[in-house]
Amino acid sequence: MQPWKTLSRETILDYSKFLTVEQHTVELPDGQVIVDWPWVVTPDYVNVVAVTEDGRFLLFRQTKYAVSGTTLATVGGYLEPGEVPLAAAQRELREETGYAAPDWLALGSYVVDGNRGAGTAHFFLARRAYPVTAIDADDLEEQILLHLTPAEVEAALAAGEFKVLAWMAVIALALRYV
Amino acid sequence: MQPWKTLSRETILDYSKFLTVEQHTVELPDGQVIVDWPWVVTPDYVNVVAVTEDGRFLLFRQTKYAVSGTTLATVGGYLEPGEVPLAAAQRELREETGYAAPDWLALGSYVVDGNRGAGTAHFFLARRAYPVTAIDADDLEEQILLHLTPAEVEAALAAGEFKVLAWMAVIALALRYV
Repeated sequence: MQPWKTLSRETILDYSKFLTVEQHTVELPDGQVIVDWPWVVTPDYVNVVAVTEDGRFLLFRQTKYAVSGTTLATVGGYLEPGEVPLAAAQRELREETGYAAPDWLALGSYVVDGNRGAGTAHFFLARRAYPVTAIDADDLEEQILLHLTPAEVEAALAAGEFKVLAWMAVIALALRYV
Repeated sequence: MQPWKTLSRETILDYSKFLTVEQHTVELPDGQVIVDWPWVVTPDYVNVVAVTEDGRFLLFRQTKYAVSGTTLATVGGYLEPGEVPLAAAQRELREETGYAAPDWLALGSYVVDGNRGAGTAHFFLARRAYPVTAIDADDLEEQILLHLTPAEVEAALAAGEFKVLAWMAVIALALRYV
């Protein structure tokens, strides 16, 4: 199996640091050329499932622009320029919850859109999390920090209460290791 | 907790049926107004974890433009105009594998990007799948149909062989019901 080749790329929408759109000319293994393949550049992000020393999951109840009603959410955010995923994960955990953790497990990195890119999601499980500081989040959304039991998390997952793909995904993956 | 309000929206890139970009003016609950909130319109899609009568998972080894090397993949594709998710899931299973199934479990619907939209992913588990016809896929990518055991799927998930977020997510979720 051969990969597709990018023959050329041009920016067709340079909106902000949150969104750039490119048009790629792509050559398939059989020689077919597609001249208008859209490619979306959005920031890479991390999501963290943090579990405290007494086995509680640190999660949020929050609003989100693309979500109807409220949703359960994990710790997470965009990578800052030059930041590696683990550092971003540790920073977001501290900023959003005031917790740190001594035990980090990388749960993999996943491209968000197999056709158009749209960034990469880096997932982590943080175990034995403990409080170290006050919350210092800069998120625009309202959010309430929750401490849920594994059984509560499993029930919420089954009920579709994690309404954003990445949050559901990292929870479903993390539950395999808790 | 109050939702954000969309005060106005305009299309800033009308690229194709695969991608439209809008700019929204959004009002937050505290009255703050953001005039340049990007919003991405891409097609809703389905992914299906199909398990045969003898317990094998129907998956693909394939290339994908946004993925380095090859990846494991689930059955899936975009909804056609007017199509409901379950019908799309059943159509994609038949087209991509030649299988049908009598037992469908909806695993939920998830917004792909909590900030910018980017469509909704609808996930299904199809159990007791059996062959009914020849494969009739229209995908551009090369792909090889595999019949994997649950242990093989679990090992592949842990090894990061599902490299696209939605595929990893639906596998991690489906394994809870198999």
